[in-house]
Amino acid sequence: MFITFEGGDGAGKSTQIARLAAHLREAGHEVETTFEPGEGELGKELRRLIQHSGDIDARTEALLYAADRAEHVARVVRPALERGAIVLCDRYLDSSVAYQGAGRDLGTEEIRDLSIWATHGLMPDLTLLFDIDPELAATRRTGEPDRLEREPLAFHTQVRENFVAAAHAYPERFVIIDAARTPDEISADVQRIVGERMTGAQS
Amino acid sequence: MFITFEGGDGAGKSTQIARLAAHLREAGHEVETTFEPGEGELGKELRRLIQHSGDIDARTEALLYAADRAEHVARVVRPALERGAIVLCDRYLDSSVAYQGAGRDLGTEEIRDLSIWATHGLMPDLTLLFDIDPELAATRRTGEPDRLEREPLAFHTQVRENFVAAAHAYPERFVIIDAARTPDEISADVQRIVGERMTGAQS
Repeated sequence: MFITFEGGDGAGKSTQIARLAAHLREAGHEVETTFEPGEGELGKELRRLIQHSGDIDARTEALLYAADRAEHVARVVRPALERGAIVLCDRYLDSSVAYQGAGRDLGTEEIRDLSIWATHGLMPDLTLLFDIDPELAATRRTGEPDRLEREPLAFHTQVRENFVAAAHAYPERFVIIDAARTPDEISADVQRIVGERMTGAQS
Repeated sequence: MFITFEGGDGAGKSTQIARLAAHLREAGHEVETTFEPGEGELGKELRRLIQHSGDIDARTEALLYAADRAEHVARVVRPALERGAIVLCDRYLDSSVAYQGAGRDLGTEEIRDLSIWATHGLMPDLTLLFDIDPELAATRRTGEPDRLEREPLAFHTQVRENFVAAAHAYPERFVIIDAARTPDEISADVQRIVGERMTGAQS
């Protein structure tokens, strides 16, 4: 089972991935937690190039994210799925669609097609969208903001709208999580949703 | 006018680009000579990643070349064409098609589509294919061989066949140059072909 966690920065995705992984491991499952962009040696280099390059072309940026995704899927995600692990991935193709496809004025369909080509068509079984007001999320961030985090509020608002639009376009795959609540409320929700999907997948 | 130089390593492309550039400048033209992969700061980093990474996934490699091409076209080729320069480029999308599309068992059409997306559809006005027996070309190379040059002869033979197939598929754009001849014979040929195209383009 391949589960992706989507949403803006500061929505609490990484906390919830750690909690869900612990919960699933206690229940006896093998769990692989991973993330995009920038997993692995090549991924680290690509993440550095993307985040700290100057004013790179929008298509270049989209292709670098796609390259990172291709390598990550080929080296980490597919092997883990093939040995029966549950894969929890912090960001996947919906982030590309939301950030590059819309925020950077490239076509949503083009960006999706690029990711589908890069991953040889690997789609998540379940995508949890951590939805939160970008102004609230900004107050939760720690550390120096990177290139995307420094974008103006209007950009983050558009990204949020694109995530929600994707959730409505693919209702079988997406569940929207209200990420303005407490971590305990959210993790109870996440465990319930994942538990229901796993029961459904077995029946 | 956008002219690309294609063919295996050791075919004498860079010598002929330098000669043609000098010839065109003497005739009063502005000429931009450039190359792929690896032009510019980001390009250098990508070239290093591609050539010196270990066993990277074939799709990752194709996407990194496409990212390099997107940036090169946006930052160098299009601006030069827009100010009226003649652009001479050592390798372009036909190299990706020949090397990745065939040599690495990815679909030719997919690789071509990826480059067309990356460049927003910028195609050369003229492509000179420097055709030479790979065994002869190998004897002309200098320096340490890189990752592609270390591939076995069968790979380079397949690449050559793919270049020739592209030339036959796009006869209006391609001219095949017999690169086994002397540099003087080749440059006389190149100057004649380019001169005819430029006259044709103006009439």
